[in-house]
Amino acid sequence: MCGIVGYIGSRNAQQVLLSGLAKLEYRGYDSAGVAIMDGPAALGGAIQVRKKAGKLANLSGELLAAPLTGTLGIGHTRWATHGLPNDTNAHPHATEDGRLVIIHNGIIENYLTLKEGLTARGHVFLSQTDSEVLAHLIEEKYELVSGNLYEAMRQALGEVRGAYGIVVTHQDHREIVAARTVSPLVMGVGEGEMFLASDVPALLPYTRQMVFLHDGDMVVLSDDGFRVTDLAGNSVARTIEQIDWDAEAAEKGGYDTYMLKEIYEQPTALTNTLIGRLHDDTGEVNLDIDLDPTSFKRISIIACGTAYYAGLVGEYLIEQLARIPVEVDVASEYRYRDPLVSKDTLAIVISQSGETIDTLEALREAKRGGARTLGIINAKGSSMTRELDDTLYIHAGPEIGVASTKAYTSMVGAMLMLALWLARARGTLTQEAGKELLHAARALPRLVEEALEPARVERIKAVAEKYAHARDYLFLGRGVNAPTALEGALKLKEISYIHAEGYAAGEMKHGPIALIDASLPVVVVATESRLLEKTISNVQEVRARGGQVILLLSDGDTENAQHGEEVLYVPRAHEMVSPVVNVVALQLLSYFTASHLGKDVDKPRNLAKSVTVE
Amino acid sequence: MCGIVGYIGSRNAQQVLLSGLAKLEYRGYDSAGVAIMDGPAALGGAIQVRKKAGKLANLSGELLAAPLTGTLGIGHTRWATHGLPNDTNAHPHATEDGRLVIIHNGIIENYLTLKEGLTARGHVFLSQTDSEVLAHLIEEKYELVSGNLYEAMRQALGEVRGAYGIVVTHQDHREIVAARTVSPLVMGVGEGEMFLASDVPALLPYTRQMVFLHDGDMVVLSDDGFRVTDLAGNSVARTIEQIDWDAEAAEKGGYDTYMLKEIYEQPTALTNTLIGRLHDDTGEVNLDIDLDPTSFKRISIIACGTAYYAGLVGEYLIEQLARIPVEVDVASEYRYRDPLVSKDTLAIVISQSGETIDTLEALREAKRGGARTLGIINAKGSSMTRELDDTLYIHAGPEIGVASTKAYTSMVGAMLMLALWLARARGTLTQEAGKELLHAARALPRLVEEALEPARVERIKAVAEKYAHARDYLFLGRGVNAPTALEGALKLKEISYIHAEGYAAGEMKHGPIALIDASLPVVVVATESRLLEKTISNVQEVRARGGQVILLLSDGDTENAQHGEEVLYVPRAHEMVSPVVNVVALQLLSYFTASHLGKDVDKPRNLAKSVTVE
Repeated sequence: MCGIVGYIGSRNAQQVLLSGLAKLEYRGYDSAGVAIMDGPAALGGAIQVRKKAGKLANLSGELLAAPLTGTLGIGHTRWATHGLPNDTNAHPHATEDGRLVIIHNGIIENYLTLKEGLTARGHVFLSQTDSEVLAHLIEEKYELVSGNLYEAMRQALGEVRGAYGIVVTHQDHREIVAARTVSPLVMGVGEGEMFLASDVPALLPYTRQMVFLHDGDMVVLSDDGFRVTDLAGNSVARTIEQIDWDAEAAEKGGYDTYMLKEIYEQPTALTNTLIGRLHDDTGEVNLDIDLDPTSFKRISIIACGTAYYAGLVGEYLIEQLARIPVEVDVASEYRYRDPLVSKDTLAIVISQSGETIDTLEALREAKRGGARTLGIINAKGSSMTRELDDTLYIHAGPEIGVASTKAYTSMVGAMLMLALWLARARGTLTQEAGKELLHAARALPRLVEEALEPARVERIKAVAEKYAHARDYLFLGRGVNAPTALEGALKLKEISYIHAEGYAAGEMKHGPIALIDASLPVVVVATESRLLEKTISNVQEVRARGGQVILLLSDGDTENAQHGEEVLYVPRAHEMVSPVVNVVALQLLSYFTASHLGKDVDKPRNLAKSVTVE
Repeated sequence: MCGIVGYIGSRNAQQVLLSGLAKLEYRGYDSAGVAIMDGPAALGGAIQVRKKAGKLANLSGELLAAPLTGTLGIGHTRWATHGLPNDTNAHPHATEDGRLVIIHNGIIENYLTLKEGLTARGHVFLSQTDSEVLAHLIEEKYELVSGNLYEAMRQALGEVRGAYGIVVTHQDHREIVAARTVSPLVMGVGEGEMFLASDVPALLPYTRQMVFLHDGDMVVLSDDGFRVTDLAGNSVARTIEQIDWDAEAAEKGGYDTYMLKEIYEQPTALTNTLIGRLHDDTGEVNLDIDLDPTSFKRISIIACGTAYYAGLVGEYLIEQLARIPVEVDVASEYRYRDPLVSKDTLAIVISQSGETIDTLEALREAKRGGARTLGIINAKGSSMTRELDDTLYIHAGPEIGVASTKAYTSMVGAMLMLALWLARARGTLTQEAGKELLHAARALPRLVEEALEPARVERIKAVAEKYAHARDYLFLGRGVNAPTALEGALKLKEISYIHAEGYAAGEMKHGPIALIDASLPVVVVATESRLLEKTISNVQEVRARGGQVILLLSDGDTENAQHGEEVLYVPRAHEMVSPVVNVVALQLLSYFTASHLGKDVDKPRNLAKSVTVE
């Protein structure tokens, strides 16, 4: 995701911005830029913008050769969502007169409508980004409110739908105005200087006094302080915290591990996956891809590891909703089995990194066979995206922990949207049913947030620690949550080295039931579903043989609580979207098990984050 | 499979035959019959035949009401292969004049040709069985050799292709003549009496002196002894053995367990699966089913447990050879997921028992959707067979051990034939390639026999015992042998309760590789294949992390032996048929592991042979 840095004070802004952006490089980006005010306009100064596609070194090289002087500036590393990763689309974006510049992290959902209106009123757009509308919109308001930058931004935001961290500065004011919704922003408080960033590491070299802005906060930064309000303009108090993290802890956002940070980032990641793509009013999904949804007869989903399980959920959703035959293959098998592919085939590859070699080669195999190709990918500009016909980015942000968490839930979110899109386009889902599912999808960030409530997390931790010394674990689920069981098992296996295995609950009696004895914890996903009763029958088969059942139940299901040694309640969700909510509890169960056992959760033995060997 | 009993002596034949057939009931059957000579013709006697569809009780009820007297007779329980299970098709079959009767176990491959000739020469057939041709053919020869029953049978067999245990008697002679190829026959030697049976338990109440006939043996039994020859008419010596088995051991054929017996029965079971269905001359397969091989566009394979893995092999074979998209589902998932089915779908269900409730319900679900249905089934007349459009029986014979062995290899054999049949009919396989694969299929019984050679079995036993105390096991394979790895893991899990898990070898690095340490045996199927080199790379990934590799290599592959801690050599087989040969080593590995650990191999805890609950 994009990186943001802002500075106002007495230091050389260029230096602060470049060093801050460098600290955010680990998050991934495809272009970078800065805007620096070389003095207030009254003193004859102006805002200078420099931006370059590619690595930060491209930009800093240019700035070293021709430095920008000035003590107020904003900087940005971009991860493309709308528009190619080139110089023009890089941030900051300026108005035509160059007096106002903005940087933006997130997605503006209604940017097309806004852009039409602005264009009609004479604004000229230079880039293909959604972000640029913010510059023009704030500029327009600025005139209306007699040059009050804060008020101009506040009114502009009233017309904006989306997720954002926005930072603005204007040549006429020695101040930086910023606001956030979903996308994170943190302020650094110095002596006669103020800092702003999308993440803590950028600020650590300068100050440890920080203010974490809340959703819906607006802030005005000046040389000697800051003022926070809500979007309605009311002042709000925000505490200054003393951050004692070291650099590594800072990258982990104060969490013990990247994995835990990424588990908690899931509401944001999901928001970014879904945002701008769901139209509640029409029950339609807009994926901004060229694919003709009626141009194929079969779908072949190809992936490895966790992404493969996201593919299994996708298979279920697409077959149920869009009634197209789907087959899911592990990439290492697909690429060598002379697969059945034709022009009638849509091949979907799923990969966080976009670099997994088996999946890349499988993609090439599918293309050779004439398939149309679509990628569900996290990393922009990765190898696969250069070879795919279409890419549906999941926008989950960088994932550092080797065991995938937020990429998984975002992949499932993307598969859900794809299934809805196909179903609506192919006429297998009514507008009403489409709206219901859209509504359910839109609830996901909130439901995952609820799944991460402290009381639930504490409960999961206690259960994890109780069973941490089990040698084996079984995970069971049915229907759309059969893959949830598989993913839960994989997660535990990956980071705790406990031999966990996932099974479709109804298949257990055909083999793995032999393993069941009193030393075997069996996790059963038994949340609200039309198959719940069947699942509970399987639970009883396990208990009759002495197995220790850890039940995942939907909030409020007290009736079935009696069937488990332990019950973990999860937020009640529509069955079709429930895999996203349910898996969070399993991620935490694995996490706390591995932590309790003292394992290196972020870098489990033998595993690599991006597998680029066969 | 069919049961055979014969008696000549001074006892009441009816009683001996009925008690013997009762001891063979466990093998399964659908009708029963006896033929008893109530005295030599010279004394005015004649051969009386009684036969009834259904349970033995139907026949014995009739015989109790109206007993047959006589001291020479033959009896049979039939498991239908050709022709419905009704009174007429039950054995014995008599000639028109009723003077010669035969019973037969096995399949006569060229019976249609023989029947045409016999019909042209005036013979009238009463039944739809292949067996009846034997009665007419021997009758015809009997005239030519001036009433020498033995010689008539010997000449008749010269014209017969197939597998058989045949027993004949004729009104003019106080003797029983029998012969075997593939199908077993054992003689019991008494004082002034002789017995014959397809299996030991039938004879145990009467004698413990037994002669196990060899393939190609013919025998003539009289009141005071027997004479064995080969099919060319040369005398051969056969030892009389003293059998000290109890009744249960007898049912196990002298093996410690049913499972071991069934493992060793695989060459015979496979012969019975393949026999009469492969035409080497044309490269064609005759499955004797009504299905139009060009009438569908997708195949859906549905099964549980071991049968599911046979389905995965089937998927690979059908997609490779016949180029039809195949999806394989576990039945418990399929039945509840509102599957995509239409008239264009062929639904294939696989079940040993034909009673597995999940599979049966999935079959019904497929039928509701309009699918054409085909079953790969072992048990005749089982519930599924009554609802299927077509059934391809695997003829593996009764399987008593809960962990499936011979049913699995026969199911895979059946899938192979099905794939060949589809491929030839749909023009995706040349005659030449078809012949090559037919040849490879026909070699299977012999290759499995080689896989069971004592030296190999001893080696597997030693390796099994060395690793018997491992807590976990991993099984890896690629391509057509990926399911072999899954089945190997399931087998070990089922009977030893060791947590074994199977994986596609290339997928291991996406998760399970985290489990690998020096305490983890990893079995890798690395037999001759175009993917062998890739598989060996995966082996090296395991070894680099300290895993203990047990390699399955093809005979003669000394080059790759260095990559395993242990090497198990298996007979070299065509890649497409190799799953059948390779799995035998894994069955034995599981068997000896479980035995060494003192587990009840035939009745593992928690498991049922035929799962008739959800």
